[in-house]
Amino acid sequence: MKIAPAGSLGHRIWSAGVLLRSPSGLVERLRLRVFSQAYPSLKFSGKTMVETKDHDTLLASMRSRVQEQGDIVRALKNRNAPDSELKVALAELKARKKLLEEKEAELVPLSPNFDRSKLEDLLKQRFFYDQSFAIYGGIQGLYDYGPMGCAMKANLIAAWRQHFILEDQLLEVDCSMLTPAPVLQASGHVERFTDLMVKDTKTGECFRADHLVKANLEAKQKDKKTTEVEKQEIQKLLTQLDNFGSKELDEIIRRYEMKAPNTNNDLTEPQDFNLMFATMIGPTGNCKGYLRPETAQGIFVNFQRLLQFNQGRIPFGAAQIGSAFRNEISPRSGLIRVREFAMAEIEYFVDPKNKQHPKFDRVCNVSMALYSACDQMDGNMPRKMTIGEAVDQGIVANETLGYFMARIHQFLLLIGIDPQRLRFRQHLSNEMAHYACDCWDAECQTSYGWVECVGCADRSCFDLTQHARATGTRLVAEKRLTEPRMVRVCECVPNKQALGKTYRGEAKSLTERLSTLTVDEALELKATLDSVGEAEVLVDGKPFIVDISMVKMKDYESKVHVEEIVPNVIEPSFGLGRILYAVFEHSFRVREGDEQRTYLSVPPLLAPYKCSVLPLSSHPDFGPFIRQLSDALTKAGVTHRIDESSGSIGRRYARTDQIAIPYGITIDFDTLNKSPASATLRERDSMKQIRVPISALPALVSDLSNGILDWTEAQSRFPAFEQQETGKQN
Amino acid sequence: MKIAPAGSLGHRIWSAGVLLRSPSGLVERLRLRVFSQAYPSLKFSGKTMVETKDHDTLLASMRSRVQEQGDIVRALKNRNAPDSELKVALAELKARKKLLEEKEAELVPLSPNFDRSKLEDLLKQRFFYDQSFAIYGGIQGLYDYGPMGCAMKANLIAAWRQHFILEDQLLEVDCSMLTPAPVLQASGHVERFTDLMVKDTKTGECFRADHLVKANLEAKQKDKKTTEVEKQEIQKLLTQLDNFGSKELDEIIRRYEMKAPNTNNDLTEPQDFNLMFATMIGPTGNCKGYLRPETAQGIFVNFQRLLQFNQGRIPFGAAQIGSAFRNEISPRSGLIRVREFAMAEIEYFVDPKNKQHPKFDRVCNVSMALYSACDQMDGNMPRKMTIGEAVDQGIVANETLGYFMARIHQFLLLIGIDPQRLRFRQHLSNEMAHYACDCWDAECQTSYGWVECVGCADRSCFDLTQHARATGTRLVAEKRLTEPRMVRVCECVPNKQALGKTYRGEAKSLTERLSTLTVDEALELKATLDSVGEAEVLVDGKPFIVDISMVKMKDYESKVHVEEIVPNVIEPSFGLGRILYAVFEHSFRVREGDEQRTYLSVPPLLAPYKCSVLPLSSHPDFGPFIRQLSDALTKAGVTHRIDESSGSIGRRYARTDQIAIPYGITIDFDTLNKSPASATLRERDSMKQIRVPISALPALVSDLSNGILDWTEAQSRFPAFEQQETGKQN
Repeated sequence: MKIAPAGSLGHRIWSAGVLLRSPSGLVERLRLRVFSQAYPSLKFSGKTMVETKDHDTLLASMRSRVQEQGDIVRALKNRNAPDSELKVALAELKARKKLLEEKEAELVPLSPNFDRSKLEDLLKQRFFYDQSFAIYGGIQGLYDYGPMGCAMKANLIAAWRQHFILEDQLLEVDCSMLTPAPVLQASGHVERFTDLMVKDTKTGECFRADHLVKANLEAKQKDKKTTEVEKQEIQKLLTQLDNFGSKELDEIIRRYEMKAPNTNNDLTEPQDFNLMFATMIGPTGNCKGYLRPETAQGIFVNFQRLLQFNQGRIPFGAAQIGSAFRNEISPRSGLIRVREFAMAEIEYFVDPKNKQHPKFDRVCNVSMALYSACDQMDGNMPRKMTIGEAVDQGIVANETLGYFMARIHQFLLLIGIDPQRLRFRQHLSNEMAHYACDCWDAECQTSYGWVECVGCADRSCFDLTQHARATGTRLVAEKRLTEPRMVRVCECVPNKQALGKTYRGEAKSLTERLSTLTVDEALELKATLDSVGEAEVLVDGKPFIVDISMVKMKDYESKVHVEEIVPNVIEPSFGLGRILYAVFEHSFRVREGDEQRTYLSVPPLLAPYKCSVLPLSSHPDFGPFIRQLSDALTKAGVTHRIDESSGSIGRRYARTDQIAIPYGITIDFDTLNKSPASATLRERDSMKQIRVPISALPALVSDLSNGILDWTEAQSRFPAFEQQETGKQN
Repeated sequence: MKIAPAGSLGHRIWSAGVLLRSPSGLVERLRLRVFSQAYPSLKFSGKTMVETKDHDTLLASMRSRVQEQGDIVRALKNRNAPDSELKVALAELKARKKLLEEKEAELVPLSPNFDRSKLEDLLKQRFFYDQSFAIYGGIQGLYDYGPMGCAMKANLIAAWRQHFILEDQLLEVDCSMLTPAPVLQASGHVERFTDLMVKDTKTGECFRADHLVKANLEAKQKDKKTTEVEKQEIQKLLTQLDNFGSKELDEIIRRYEMKAPNTNNDLTEPQDFNLMFATMIGPTGNCKGYLRPETAQGIFVNFQRLLQFNQGRIPFGAAQIGSAFRNEISPRSGLIRVREFAMAEIEYFVDPKNKQHPKFDRVCNVSMALYSACDQMDGNMPRKMTIGEAVDQGIVANETLGYFMARIHQFLLLIGIDPQRLRFRQHLSNEMAHYACDCWDAECQTSYGWVECVGCADRSCFDLTQHARATGTRLVAEKRLTEPRMVRVCECVPNKQALGKTYRGEAKSLTERLSTLTVDEALELKATLDSVGEAEVLVDGKPFIVDISMVKMKDYESKVHVEEIVPNVIEPSFGLGRILYAVFEHSFRVREGDEQRTYLSVPPLLAPYKCSVLPLSSHPDFGPFIRQLSDALTKAGVTHRIDESSGSIGRRYARTDQIAIPYGITIDFDTLNKSPASATLRERDSMKQIRVPISALPALVSDLSNGILDWTEAQSRFPAFEQQETGKQN
């Protein structure tokens, strides 16, 4: 669950760092939340900003405030300060970091004239996507992709397959979305995949507890009647909000007498709400299931089959592209937070003792914006460096992780992410689950802030271990030793009769536990039994006393040729909807001098159609040419859209620009009358045109779309066509 | 819902012909069930078959029995016999037809040596697909596709997109699977998408009522203690089983004292079990939702957006590829009946008065095996004819339906369905939903019988009308009239105040109803009000009295340039899992003279990898060549699998044959030592090899895989390579 496309997991799960998967979503939530908290005395809205202050000086002072707090965090860590103390300091650090980032974005904007409402108009109007079931009133957090969005999504998936699966010969699987409860109990989701929720005691309306508390505190803070002392108190609470559990949030709700929005009714105590959609599989009502909250588990439960398919060898990677579901309490933010979404996940299984990657040399010179945990603590900017340097310097934990980060970087550029608005941010130590070695998020800057679009984590052996434990299956790989080795083996053979007599109904689980002890565990048990005659064994947290009558310990040396290892897993995890949305923002353009002419400059690879076919007018003689050309384009595999509607050619170009079609073919009267027949080919971004023989068009557009040829090269091969498409100068 | 991949809908929904979508699954169920019922005195198992009887005579006599019953059905129809009488006669007809078909399959087998267990071994062993969550004990009806199955499924989808979406410029959408209840209430699924179920009264175990009754009756029939009279009685019940509802089934259960299998406990009365997976959307518990049971509804609820995207014009087609879910009571039959499955559906919206298709002339000569309703009633075999003839003769209802049937036919051959084991079967009149005009199923013969893989129906305006009614939205298209027309308009303007006074809380829905009367309804209302002064109006079945004080009727003529029409919809609907399974069966082969060497002869288009790359031995010098070739293949877009494992080259060929890889490249010592470097290329089905320069291989394999070149042509271009791959002569 690297990605939190719905980005809403309560931090109390994550920052506790106990069980679940990596804590993505947390930082972003902070990002959306903490702005203007660390510097309450400064106001950053356009009107009241302290404009006299020099930008650089302001940023420098903010950076040093981050660094100051970073030093405090480091010092706490060095002296092994209590977790609670560290959490408080980290929350403050994040608040300062967040503020710095926002300020940087404001003073040095990457996309100064971007207007989200204009983009949203375009996307809705041309049905890239829109709310599902709108004629029935719509459902929050559910979206339908229309023809344009659907084609882009399909192209994104095809590009992903080509870039990752084909390139690294990953084993792709397609697993059930319906998932029985025990699988998600083992993964930790049943217990901990929750958000805190409060309800209106009368209407039953639900709110995310932290959202509600935050909104209330912020309103209170702005209230003129609030004293300065109270404001400072509120500020403290806001900064630490992510550290609060249900008890603390309940206290704040009671203390500030918070009520339900709109109705002003009382609120219930915050309660955990599990974010998975539950259902019953089969008719008996005994088989509870969930819609999967991520695709990764399907790979883990198939590990043995995949290993066998790979002829028993590691490393190998498996991948899955598919839907996942999260029952958000109250989703907003368009495609960024949804209840049903497409993911693509890779689980790359490696030898824990050797995380080198055979193809690392191919990517080691890829230069990326890395935002290390250290630089985040120091208030520095992300740093451009090659992945080779980053691995050498230990900034990125290992080659395999680095390899995938570089491949992710290449992929995102390929599909149209602006490199200036892309960075890899390392998780701070308390953001990471305790078992993870290292974790980096590919973040894209959008009008919603820096949004995590891809996560890339080294998750150690956590997932396989959990499922092995839950099922009693050995999820291991065998590694051939360079030479045979004598190893000490210690086995515990339970005496079922004796155990049954003492523990009856509980004997079975105890027996199972004893049969699957690791060598170290068995040796420890043996030592205790040898010295004391009995020992305590924990089964699911419950202690059992085992004495020498109940077990027989076998301790011997054995010659082995292979060793069994639990592979570690490197997990790149992509939120496809978020990536698409980032591409939309990064490719949104307005024609110079014409505010109304918006368009999408997405790469041909991702464009929903590669080409439009436009007759100059509705003259019937154009018909046969259009039909013939359309067939030839279809045969060449060029997706295209014919627009025979009335409207000037300029207006139709504008329409095709809006749906991101990179190339446009216009059939005009010269096409009909001159021989050999030719037509104009227009490129979307430059609006330049060339004149090309009709017979050459399908292959040309195909090459242009597949990146075999670029537009400049095409321009050098065919004569320019100079006619202006509108009255305006371009 | 043309497809019933889970094939389990209780016939009482369908044959009642009242509301839901086409009744697929019914006939197949009959097919699986009725065998050996119509001729109980003949036994068809190998041992006891009446082998003396001449095949032709036997079949002819069976055919005439079908025809005899077909004539009875026709006679009943002609004299408008009661529905109940017709049902009984049809059940008998189907039983006879079924028996005839089975006999034909037995006497003239299309695949005489097919051994399903061998195919299943291969599919499981090489992880094409397997039961989901097996390490947790598995869940019935859920399957995971492994790397090979997943690649084939992805290739199937890509081929489908190319063949249907690109060719006909269909508007593809990708809609939410989570669906709020009102949508599926309107479509009829909430009320009627059910099977009858009985439970063990003590353990709660569930059984499909009809399955349980059938198994019990059949056992009873075979019981030696059963008298001849009783046997005849049972035979009657078995033949009519599909006509029975819960009451009749309950009577049978009580009469024959049927008990739960295994436990012998009592059974509950049969009760309706809805086959949709239910869940709650959002945290309130107020928004009930279901996982969609088909993808079609997503298209219908987006009709307006799609029409707008198509600039208001019909005809146009929309398509969706995605997952759907059915909570089968007790699924069996592998991929044929599953709880989660992939579908691809097209909804082609046409003018009800013009169902011609502009591209019909391109397919009119496609020759197909058509099994018309008439031929089914006459006991005839399916008939080879062109779709042009079929439409001309009125066997297929219209050109658009015929166009898609031909395109489906082409597609199925393209992806590897054996034309000898493919037929299009027309629904008998009582199989069709009452609103459908015509419906044909593309059926593939498998070891499970003739399995419906694609349905193709003209569904008239049913779906749009249902959603328009449920939402009060106008789901219509405008058709420009050749010349303006004067039309009579009649509108009802409700007097809200007067209505509110009389009907209070109910006034709102009544007002809505009155505001959306059709012209005919309004004219009728006006006539009644004019003559009687009041009229009864039904809202959701409840009558309201409306008098002249409550409404104002406007009745006038108006000049219109367009007319509004509710488009009809032609729906081709593909069950992708079933199609894949049929391809597996149709492409399964055993090497002559070697029973153990099984392989899959699927077309390169669908093959999971296009090519294998095999070093002759594990000699380290092969490494660089392999790497270089692999890169070149990747660049050329050729999916491939490297097998560097030990094992003879013959054994490795056998392994790649099993996973359907059509071409194999072997690097041998000549590759290393001779210049220019060359390698052998082997074709899977013929096992013939040619010697090709390494530099030419990527393009050659790419062309072969894409169907640009065939193997014979490749053989003529490059020298044959004669070395035998095994000791055996090929």
